[in-house]
Amino acid sequence: MKFIHTADWHLGKIVHGVSMIEDQRFVLKKLIKIIEIEKPDALVIAGDLYDRSVPPASAINLLNQVLFTINVEMNVPVIAISGNHDSADRLAFGSTWFRQSHFYLAGKLEKEMYCPVINGVHFHCLPYAEPGVVRHLYEDESIQSHHDAMKVLTGRLSEQMDPNAFHVAVGHSFVTGGETSDSERILSVGGTGNVGAELFSPFHYTALGHLHNPNAIRHEKVQYSGSLLKYSFSEASHTKSISIIELDEKGQLSVTQEPLTPLRDMKEIKGFFDEIMEMDEVDDYIKVTLKDEGAILDPMAKLKMKFPNILHLERAALKAGSTISAAELKKQKNELELFGEFYEVMTGLSFSAEKEAYIASVMDDVKKGREYA
Amino acid sequence: MKFIHTADWHLGKIVHGVSMIEDQRFVLKKLIKIIEIEKPDALVIAGDLYDRSVPPASAINLLNQVLFTINVEMNVPVIAISGNHDSADRLAFGSTWFRQSHFYLAGKLEKEMYCPVINGVHFHCLPYAEPGVVRHLYEDESIQSHHDAMKVLTGRLSEQMDPNAFHVAVGHSFVTGGETSDSERILSVGGTGNVGAELFSPFHYTALGHLHNPNAIRHEKVQYSGSLLKYSFSEASHTKSISIIELDEKGQLSVTQEPLTPLRDMKEIKGFFDEIMEMDEVDDYIKVTLKDEGAILDPMAKLKMKFPNILHLERAALKAGSTISAAELKKQKNELELFGEFYEVMTGLSFSAEKEAYIASVMDDVKKGREYA
Repeated sequence: MKFIHTADWHLGKIVHGVSMIEDQRFVLKKLIKIIEIEKPDALVIAGDLYDRSVPPASAINLLNQVLFTINVEMNVPVIAISGNHDSADRLAFGSTWFRQSHFYLAGKLEKEMYCPVINGVHFHCLPYAEPGVVRHLYEDESIQSHHDAMKVLTGRLSEQMDPNAFHVAVGHSFVTGGETSDSERILSVGGTGNVGAELFSPFHYTALGHLHNPNAIRHEKVQYSGSLLKYSFSEASHTKSISIIELDEKGQLSVTQEPLTPLRDMKEIKGFFDEIMEMDEVDDYIKVTLKDEGAILDPMAKLKMKFPNILHLERAALKAGSTISAAELKKQKNELELFGEFYEVMTGLSFSAEKEAYIASVMDDVKKGREYA
Repeated sequence: MKFIHTADWHLGKIVHGVSMIEDQRFVLKKLIKIIEIEKPDALVIAGDLYDRSVPPASAINLLNQVLFTINVEMNVPVIAISGNHDSADRLAFGSTWFRQSHFYLAGKLEKEMYCPVINGVHFHCLPYAEPGVVRHLYEDESIQSHHDAMKVLTGRLSEQMDPNAFHVAVGHSFVTGGETSDSERILSVGGTGNVGAELFSPFHYTALGHLHNPNAIRHEKVQYSGSLLKYSFSEASHTKSISIIELDEKGQLSVTQEPLTPLRDMKEIKGFFDEIMEMDEVDDYIKVTLKDEGAILDPMAKLKMKFPNILHLERAALKAGSTISAAELKKQKNELELFGEFYEVMTGLSFSAEKEAYIASVMDDVKKGREYA
């Protein structure tokens, strides 16, 4: 059994005001080429097919074309689930028809999910759902977090599983310890939204979506494929790829990452203006950080002549506050420090020791569940 | 050959702030019952499946359920086109898959439309398109109006038709002379948007959508089915129905209108408050017009006890301007009178003879194509 694992296509995505649709069309052609060569038994898309719940018509057309080519023209079964960026209801339209041609599209989480079996491998679809949705579906008040919800879902699946068959889970979750980037939407405001990798132990492989780095976690059987393209400059160092999964008759797993070459790469350039203007022209998406401290006359217009697809320009000498990367910040700071940074950026006032003590006491109250009228 | 002709479902429609989804679900169950009894060879839906380009999830779910029941479970071919309320692109997703189970969904107008043949009858789909779209598609600058566009479309179809077969057109247009109501969106601002019925002469039957009255035009072979439900009080006098079309081996046509009983009817009641409060309670959607001239304390709350689904209350004695019906107005007034009425309603000022003369000269200039800087 061989299948391709991909996720986070985010069709219709706009980065710094620029539509990625042509880049997406280009890289999906590459995917089709890989499918032609690899001849997999199935294609798995682990959520976030679209970038938003009401995607633009161009994104709908592109998804329709690509999946029709793969599923109908190339006769490859497709298993796709909705992610936190998709509208489960909108995505699900027609899924009962699609099933007839082995296109298994799991939009909305239901109590009994359809489980396609391909070459003896059972694919268990776990479309993205808020903990409240799972709590309501199973009438289980103990479900409070994403972890609780996934525990109930995978627990029920493992009870019903044929122990002699192979099982693959397809999910869209933030697995504990995963490395984040700036283009993922946080799953749980005020909470971590994460899920322990151990919940997926009943499966021979878990094909995940949500985190955009294909190496977001190091786990033999629980893996992210990463996104189709770099969708923020925090992902500039990633090598985007699709994963080719092989499961042999003994259940032995092999995972190969096949790189996806984009139409245009996404790169960060840091240096002095004069140095940068000496560089070769490139067509890639560029973020320039200038080290110069003095005034430069209309640097963006000049840089555009060199880098026609420059998306963002920053001055390193300016206060970091306005260009701070959320992912970077989160790695280093605790909540109180983050709040202080935010307060200073937003108000321009200093976050004094007195203010800090007050906010610390509020945070403490909230954590202990004290109520405010 | 027997098929059912329906149109203008407007799923997700909101009338006076009230969602019609339960009424729509109810009446679509009736349609399924009729299909069970009549066992037609096909179901034709002539546009405006949804009420807006981005319909609510409940409308998407309802359409999915109903069409799956009819097409897959009851095995009845379905032919549907997009109307002016639908988003052609959004509606079209998956249509290439649907075709495999004889669900023919024509979203976007294309140069070569797929033409399903059912029991020897050719169904020609003419989804709604702006004249500019048809002009661009056929690179024909002479296409300026809806009539021009339809003339090109039907002209090309009639050239390619097998003269020995039977042909049905499915369109979403405003046929000249058709009776309008308040819930149809005008197709062409500043123009009539209409299309001559003679353009459909090559077809044995033309199944139209757009006008909500099943008897909007009197024509043997070119007909509207009318909408699924009454969607405005200007439709209160309609009897909503679906049309059952039979075409025998000699091409002989028979059309039967099968009434659709709604969950709640839509009715207008006019009278004095005290009289109306003597009436029997009803669950229908009600518009009350009070003839009383004096003050009445909170009439809406009192009427709601009698008519829980009252949607609109008017005082006959008040100035007609604020409650004027667009359809009524259009029947009686010319452009200049309409403008004057609009001016007075919007500004509260009188539309003097001087102002009238000025606007008349502007209208004249516009009609003669003179330009304004």
